[in-house]
Amino acid sequence: MKREGILVVISGFAGTGKGSVVHGLMEQYEQYALSISMTTRNPRPGEEEGVSYFFVDRERFEEEIKNDGLIEYASYCDNYYGTPKKYVQQQLQEGRDVILEIEIQGALKIKEQFPTALLLFIVPPSAAELKRRLVGRGTETPEVVEKRMRRAAEEAEGIGQYDYIIVNDSLEDCIRKTHEVINAARLTPVRNESFIKEIRNELVEISRK
Amino acid sequence: MKREGILVVISGFAGTGKGSVVHGLMEQYEQYALSISMTTRNPRPGEEEGVSYFFVDRERFEEEIKNDGLIEYASYCDNYYGTPKKYVQQQLQEGRDVILEIEIQGALKIKEQFPTALLLFIVPPSAAELKRRLVGRGTETPEVVEKRMRRAAEEAEGIGQYDYIIVNDSLEDCIRKTHEVINAARLTPVRNESFIKEIRNELVEISRK
Repeated sequence: MKREGILVVISGFAGTGKGSVVHGLMEQYEQYALSISMTTRNPRPGEEEGVSYFFVDRERFEEEIKNDGLIEYASYCDNYYGTPKKYVQQQLQEGRDVILEIEIQGALKIKEQFPTALLLFIVPPSAAELKRRLVGRGTETPEVVEKRMRRAAEEAEGIGQYDYIIVNDSLEDCIRKTHEVINAARLTPVRNESFIKEIRNELVEISRK
Repeated sequence: MKREGILVVISGFAGTGKGSVVHGLMEQYEQYALSISMTTRNPRPGEEEGVSYFFVDRERFEEEIKNDGLIEYASYCDNYYGTPKKYVQQQLQEGRDVILEIEIQGALKIKEQFPTALLLFIVPPSAAELKRRLVGRGTETPEVVEKRMRRAAEEAEGIGQYDYIIVNDSLEDCIRKTHEVINAARLTPVRNESFIKEIRNELVEISRK
């Protein structure tokens, strides 16, 4: 079946390891392209232009908003963050599945605009395990860990709106399952409308002969 | 995630090879159970009771209807055909995915009763290929081939109501894809309601501590 790529939105609580899952997909399979966000915040040490983010000033960002150049955007801590539309559309047209790592509000906005977007939510095996992972990082104060756990409890309300929930128990398993789920999604009728139409017409034509 | 099995309905035009796909799934993976239909028609040579069908008389069949013992049934050429409910429920409870090979009308009836049933439609790569396969069997008259092609054209109208469409180009690929699609379906929110509820409650509890 000839087809466009799928817009794949990956969300998950902080500490679930969704970044590693995205990294694994990009590394192990050729069918993916990673969407890079645009932001007005300053680069942190080690962050690269066009790899971590597209770093722009407010004026440029607001121009993008005005020109409908962003799929979604949000303001957070006085900075803008958004998803440039052009790159995403280009990759989809070339048949690549575009991965967007984004939080739940953005994910639902994307689903409104792209009804065939695939929404994946990565979950920890349990809440206790999530806490263990956050504490185990050793880089966050107990207050931050607590804040993230509360945030996760809020975010959990929206899980039912995702298409698939994938448990990150072992990273390799999680990457493989995510890949399989994306491949399965290629086979839904809504993503194969032209093929269905084609075979219908062909069947009608042949059976009239 | 602890879970019940999935009721998997497999449909497809005559000549698409769906029987071989079902056979392959049963042979290659242990997670499946095959639902066996009940019918009032007489066994044909080589057909075995409890393997091909459960063969019963009209009285017994009508009793099953009255007792709500069938998931769905239909009358075809003066004979009843139906799906016994008890075996299916038992296997699902034990976590096995139950496969039902059934035509489109029955499939849609099942989806009404079991909203979490997974509806798969096996398609040929093209209408021309379907005709080649039907002719190639060498067992059917041109009239029968024609009738089947017309039937396929009618059935094609309903494909959009299925969850997934799987092309049977190479049998082994088709079996593997079907298996992957079923495994992906295990990860949908609707089939993991208790897990979602559990992790939500756990998160709320932990973040209140």
